[in-house]
Amino acid sequence: MNLTALKNYLPILTWAKEYDREVLFSDLLAALIVTIMLIPQSLAYALLAGLPPQMGLYASMLPLVAYGVFGTSRTLSVGPVAVVSLMTASAIGHIASAGSVSYIEAALLLAFLSGMFLLGMGILRMGFLANFLSHPVIAGFITASGIIIAFSQLKHILGIKADGENLFALLHSLYESLGTTNLTTVAVGLPTLIFLFWVRSGLKPVLMRTGLSDKAAGMLAKTGPVLGIIATSYAAYYFDLGSRGVVLVGEVPTGLPSFQMPKLGHDAWRELMMSAVFISIIGFVESVSVGHTLAAKRRQRITPNQELIGLGAANIAASFSGGYPVTGGFARSVVNFDAGAVTPAAGMFTAVGIGAAAMYFTPYLAFLPKATLAATIIVAVLSLVDFSILKKSWGYARSDFIAVMTTLLVTLLLGVETGVACGVFASLALHLYKTSVPHMAVVGEVPGTEHYRNINRHKVITHSNILSLRIDESLYFANAGFIEDRIYELVDANAGIQHVILMCTAVNEVDLSALEVLESINLRLKDSGIELHLSEVKGPVMDVLAHTEFIKHLSGHVFLSHHLGVQSIVTASEEKKVSSTPSWDI
Amino acid sequence: MNLTALKNYLPILTWAKEYDREVLFSDLLAALIVTIMLIPQSLAYALLAGLPPQMGLYASMLPLVAYGVFGTSRTLSVGPVAVVSLMTASAIGHIASAGSVSYIEAALLLAFLSGMFLLGMGILRMGFLANFLSHPVIAGFITASGIIIAFSQLKHILGIKADGENLFALLHSLYESLGTTNLTTVAVGLPTLIFLFWVRSGLKPVLMRTGLSDKAAGMLAKTGPVLGIIATSYAAYYFDLGSRGVVLVGEVPTGLPSFQMPKLGHDAWRELMMSAVFISIIGFVESVSVGHTLAAKRRQRITPNQELIGLGAANIAASFSGGYPVTGGFARSVVNFDAGAVTPAAGMFTAVGIGAAAMYFTPYLAFLPKATLAATIIVAVLSLVDFSILKKSWGYARSDFIAVMTTLLVTLLLGVETGVACGVFASLALHLYKTSVPHMAVVGEVPGTEHYRNINRHKVITHSNILSLRIDESLYFANAGFIEDRIYELVDANAGIQHVILMCTAVNEVDLSALEVLESINLRLKDSGIELHLSEVKGPVMDVLAHTEFIKHLSGHVFLSHHLGVQSIVTASEEKKVSSTPSWDI
Repeated sequence: MNLTALKNYLPILTWAKEYDREVLFSDLLAALIVTIMLIPQSLAYALLAGLPPQMGLYASMLPLVAYGVFGTSRTLSVGPVAVVSLMTASAIGHIASAGSVSYIEAALLLAFLSGMFLLGMGILRMGFLANFLSHPVIAGFITASGIIIAFSQLKHILGIKADGENLFALLHSLYESLGTTNLTTVAVGLPTLIFLFWVRSGLKPVLMRTGLSDKAAGMLAKTGPVLGIIATSYAAYYFDLGSRGVVLVGEVPTGLPSFQMPKLGHDAWRELMMSAVFISIIGFVESVSVGHTLAAKRRQRITPNQELIGLGAANIAASFSGGYPVTGGFARSVVNFDAGAVTPAAGMFTAVGIGAAAMYFTPYLAFLPKATLAATIIVAVLSLVDFSILKKSWGYARSDFIAVMTTLLVTLLLGVETGVACGVFASLALHLYKTSVPHMAVVGEVPGTEHYRNINRHKVITHSNILSLRIDESLYFANAGFIEDRIYELVDANAGIQHVILMCTAVNEVDLSALEVLESINLRLKDSGIELHLSEVKGPVMDVLAHTEFIKHLSGHVFLSHHLGVQSIVTASEEKKVSSTPSWDI
Repeated sequence: MNLTALKNYLPILTWAKEYDREVLFSDLLAALIVTIMLIPQSLAYALLAGLPPQMGLYASMLPLVAYGVFGTSRTLSVGPVAVVSLMTASAIGHIASAGSVSYIEAALLLAFLSGMFLLGMGILRMGFLANFLSHPVIAGFITASGIIIAFSQLKHILGIKADGENLFALLHSLYESLGTTNLTTVAVGLPTLIFLFWVRSGLKPVLMRTGLSDKAAGMLAKTGPVLGIIATSYAAYYFDLGSRGVVLVGEVPTGLPSFQMPKLGHDAWRELMMSAVFISIIGFVESVSVGHTLAAKRRQRITPNQELIGLGAANIAASFSGGYPVTGGFARSVVNFDAGAVTPAAGMFTAVGIGAAAMYFTPYLAFLPKATLAATIIVAVLSLVDFSILKKSWGYARSDFIAVMTTLLVTLLLGVETGVACGVFASLALHLYKTSVPHMAVVGEVPGTEHYRNINRHKVITHSNILSLRIDESLYFANAGFIEDRIYELVDANAGIQHVILMCTAVNEVDLSALEVLESINLRLKDSGIELHLSEVKGPVMDVLAHTEFIKHLSGHVFLSHHLGVQSIVTASEEKKVSSTPSWDI
């Protein structure tokens, strides 16, 4: 393997060479801000996944280093994110009960399987598969996930127990338990929630009034949630809220995670495999779209197939170091970017920062109320909920609207995996359906040009003995029969037709099924004394057709342009009229 | 419902009105020939399905009448066919053992479920779904089914026991049992097999030498297999072959089937549902392709959605009258057609003929060797085996070849249902993959015309400040990102570009995901001082784009034709050059 190839697989070789003191300073500053922001977020997402809080911290350490070595985005920040945490909870919740040892083992295994799958996809260069998640599907499932996550955390704010496989079961369960609401917990959770909402938009202007620059105020405001954690933890300690029914995080082991192989003998791996696939794909799509957006702002590029390898390495690292499935997160990456991170070294410094927190900060977590973490999650995920896609897609195209609604509703009713699967299926099925009943237009010459357009939309010149038909789709098995029927209908409806010219500007492929249909159209028209011609057949299509029996037996011609075709037929007809004795009659 | 609508749902109302003595005579003659041909075939296919022989006869009676009332093909002959019989055996073999009462009940239930599914598809007008079975998939599974069926019958010729879930298990089982071959059975089976092969091609010339016309000899030759049945039955009776280990059909109940509802309480219906769906779709595709071919020969038409209703009615009739799943068969329909059948009344007369056979002929079946029926099946299905599709698709397009091979191999290895499912999946996946990485061509003006073609294939005129790009595919979620990358690459590689014109002749749709990509391309090019234009946008696409923000903010124009676009840009550039002070500089 030469150096260029090696650099493609190890992007760190490219950026490490250009590293200097200025870049170091930028990266260190970004790392500091991201670390402060990540601590509450990592703890919260671990809670969302049903895992002990330190696992959130562990998942924000080694994976960042691994991504830094293999990933192609300069500013993506990898770690636990909301949707993947939700999916993790749902996947491992099926095979173990939260809080048990096997639940944690399953999380490690899930991260490992997910990492191996991503790595495999990357090596096989299957990154293009993510393109099959359309924008409506992504928008639908993100909004639905936001709703599910927000409601799933409500129980922590209310201090009650509630659970449900889907949104409606969850709502029902919340409603049932409403009588057992712990008012002390609400007294902690509700103000925190309000404070955190205010922090999102209200803290920055206040900081700016103290003389901070716009940027500095924006950065500092991102660390606001830490204030909530400190205040509520201190309140819990001072007022002994634990004895009043407020659920606290409790004792958290101090120190760095121990390295260990995930237990592959775990019987659950078959059951987890499908979930690992879903988590990988969803995580990959989220990560790539964030990476793409940020890279474009600095005129950089990311390489989707190498991103698969980077994220795969990050997940495997997570599974070896006590974490759980991770991916590139939107919020953390934007903060990293805005804080001025230049290279993935910022992520590595962040890992060190989180490591320090794991070593020195965890004792203080004992008094942290879970309600505070729940409030952090709710505020974070409600920014994901965006119903504007419904209006936008409704106004644009029914098929996009159906894809959004399918994904949204099925995700709410049956969960993220089923929702995304149904969304992808629906969008593909709608696309295939549309191509199976293609638009076709009878065209005529736009006067004064060589351009041919739909006779129903433009004033055009036509000839009574020529049917000029533009087929607006590739010819393939799903539409070949439909197109055949339509051609016969048009020929039957227009007496006097002697020539049919199929204008192939939109025909990007003719498959074997369609070829056989073309053969039968040619024969049937020939029987009726009608010649079949093709025009404007593209190079790649003509390459394939050139060797076929169809072209050999085609009753008419293949014309370079539709205009040339019509002209040559009109000229030939006129010549025939002029000579009183047709040549074949002699 | 008015009369026209009623006639659409009851095609019998159309043809019954025109019925006269001449048509009656034609139909009666065709019915006689088809009846004689159907008796051995019906018995044989029942054996293939693992059912008692009389069920084959029952399935050739009432279903023909039901199809005659509801079906739209004038000459299609409905009844048991090879592939559906094989699929029936496989489906009900999973839930009951052959020969048991529940096996027969399951067959009746399967016919009922299949009928209801077809009826539902017809009422919902879902006939277009059959288009998604491409020609390569159909060719692949028919050849594979032929091979499986032929080998599955070999045991009857050899007088041994053998079974297998797939072809290789079957071959292994045959090999294992080879030592127990019953030579007397072989002495019956092998000559019959050879005789029947000879009948296919050799009997007709012999009959013609006796002075019969070409057509009459052809018809009479079709009844040849009955000779085999009579001869071997008589031999079995005369030489008491039953006591020498030749398996005979044995006692068959005489008379017409009793009407009965299928037992819906049968626990197996959930398991049978998926099989019923597959059998329905396969049967429908086979039937429609036969119906279509025959109708075209007489300039008639069939209506696929009404065919679903006709076949649904036929299967429900089969389930009520002791039959099993049926569909329109190729061989029997061709014989019916060639024998001069004019209307579905021929099928109804055939039903009467088979009824007479069931009443008066069954006692003679007691001595019929199963080897004779097996020989009938083998000869019939080997005509289905056709490997030429492999060569044809290989020479035409790799994707078609992959679809054939996938279907063929998976069908051989895992059975018809899985084979067809994998084939459809493979052909759709290949199609989607191709559209996700579309061909794009930089185009220039073909000198002397207004026509624009690929610069790599034609000598064309280009302009250094204009990138004319033809995108050979609709813009949708699966390819939007690919197209975006390609446009940036081309712009980066060609300095001096001030205008990008996307030639949209092949763009039949722009979905919401692609629209967002177009918006971001427009913004990014604008940032680089490049104008984005569209040309030759089709009516339906422009209708959708017209209201969007994208069109409002498009930096360039939408041109009616690509030529007009290039001309107007060139003219504007020249004007700019002429005026020494650009207007925006004042």
